[in-house]
Amino acid sequence: MQDREKQFIQTLKRGNATYGVGDDGVVLGDYVIATDAFFEGIHFKREWGSLEILIEKCFLVNLSDIYAMNAIPKYLLLTLCVPKDIKDVKYLAKIFSAMALKYGLKIIGGDTIVGEKLHFSLTLLGQKGKKGLYRCGIKPNDYLAYLNPKSILNHSKKQVFGKNVLHLKRALLFGIYPKDSRFAMPLLYPKMILALNVIARAGMDISDGIFIELSRLAKINKIGFTFLLKKSNWFYSPEEYQMLYAFSPYKLSKAKRLANQYRHQLVVFARAKRGSYKLVKKNWHR
Amino acid sequence: MQDREKQFIQTLKRGNATYGVGDDGVVLGDYVIATDAFFEGIHFKREWGSLEILIEKCFLVNLSDIYAMNAIPKYLLLTLCVPKDIKDVKYLAKIFSAMALKYGLKIIGGDTIVGEKLHFSLTLLGQKGKKGLYRCGIKPNDYLAYLNPKSILNHSKKQVFGKNVLHLKRALLFGIYPKDSRFAMPLLYPKMILALNVIARAGMDISDGIFIELSRLAKINKIGFTFLLKKSNWFYSPEEYQMLYAFSPYKLSKAKRLANQYRHQLVVFARAKRGSYKLVKKNWHR
Repeated sequence: MQDREKQFIQTLKRGNATYGVGDDGVVLGDYVIATDAFFEGIHFKREWGSLEILIEKCFLVNLSDIYAMNAIPKYLLLTLCVPKDIKDVKYLAKIFSAMALKYGLKIIGGDTIVGEKLHFSLTLLGQKGKKGLYRCGIKPNDYLAYLNPKSILNHSKKQVFGKNVLHLKRALLFGIYPKDSRFAMPLLYPKMILALNVIARAGMDISDGIFIELSRLAKINKIGFTFLLKKSNWFYSPEEYQMLYAFSPYKLSKAKRLANQYRHQLVVFARAKRGSYKLVKKNWHR
Repeated sequence: MQDREKQFIQTLKRGNATYGVGDDGVVLGDYVIATDAFFEGIHFKREWGSLEILIEKCFLVNLSDIYAMNAIPKYLLLTLCVPKDIKDVKYLAKIFSAMALKYGLKIIGGDTIVGEKLHFSLTLLGQKGKKGLYRCGIKPNDYLAYLNPKSILNHSKKQVFGKNVLHLKRALLFGIYPKDSRFAMPLLYPKMILALNVIARAGMDISDGIFIELSRLAKINKIGFTFLLKKSNWFYSPEEYQMLYAFSPYKLSKAKRLANQYRHQLVVFARAKRGSYKLVKKNWHR
């Protein structure tokens, strides 16, 4: 998150005008709500390729926020600015329809305008599971973990994480990126996430890099961390769209078995302890 | 609504990806949800004046959608693009905080980005009243009516309605408009609206002009209209932000008395009949 965005949100909070801001989404009655905005020139360039891939990525980013709070995505509010140079609005509408159908969503409202650039924001409403999953609730000695898809591990010896933000930067500057980059199409494993959510103590979507998310968890839970693995460079890296979990020591082996069933490795990299955690600043965000 | 927007929504509907699209907002559980997007250069220019007035207008436009479905506005999702040239984001945040507090809203989420222009969309969630108010349910012989604030009637002999869209057009082209124009600050009477909602058969917010809204009501309710007053030019005019009601003949005098208590005149201008209604095309929208 950039400094100006942070400033904006902090001022809102100080103004006593916010409620529940902090998790990936907010719980309201039986629903979890999460909003993400995608602006041409900031998050993507249309020259990169097909509108389908672009729009599907945005759906996946937003869907992962809903799953990260243990909810099933159900409804979508779509706010869209159609650029004047896109003559075939029907084609654009068909892509959004197809994505909604593919991910089990009904579009229930929004707003459509005609403007200069392709901007849209997705507000997803998900049906809350019996157990909510939040960022709070982590206790000293809990284990912190992320997930590695085995398919990718077996496939290549290349570093799995940390490349996405570089790919995004290169794409924004030069218009090129590796077609298999996960920044263009994040991997999402809803069934595994929903299964792990039930036994996790806390969880969140990694949007801004593990280190930044850890500093958020430390603040909310008033804890520090002992690192069990060598800190990797990708811990600084946003654009990874991964779950970050905390498990109680009693649930860890069950969690590992579960991940295994879904052909993933649960990578335990830190343990919570009493204390605090100070982020060494290194902001990758543009 | 412009043709391209209409095309987009119709294609979405045909794609079987929508649910409940048609009213001012959508009902989900105990909540009514309504979204409105406001883009610099399309809906407003920053040169017009203070950000406070600009942002308050946008709140009023969105609030009126929630009241129009007989719900009490409670929560706000705010998606905001802060332009790079606005250095004082705290000031901007304070305006949004102040508006949220003024209108009894808690900001529960959204997304903030930094970009070129000031764009924002407001998604309001309102607590549903016991009785919902929809666009359907109108029966032949029901009366159609809008409201005239008496304060304005007494104040001047000038035409009360129909000027807003002209003011908006002039403001977009030349940057000037009368400071008392209701396009800059729509009037909103929540208490009166909530009282009338309970006895109305159907109701909606007039966004795109009475004639266009009548054609929507005709289609949904499979009715036509007999006009009781001379058709006024402002019936074509969007940007009025007024309630359009249908009352059963048995409730009409009660509705008139109620409006009177709130210093308004209930202007009954048409009566529903069996049949259909064909809109004579005259699109004012830009």
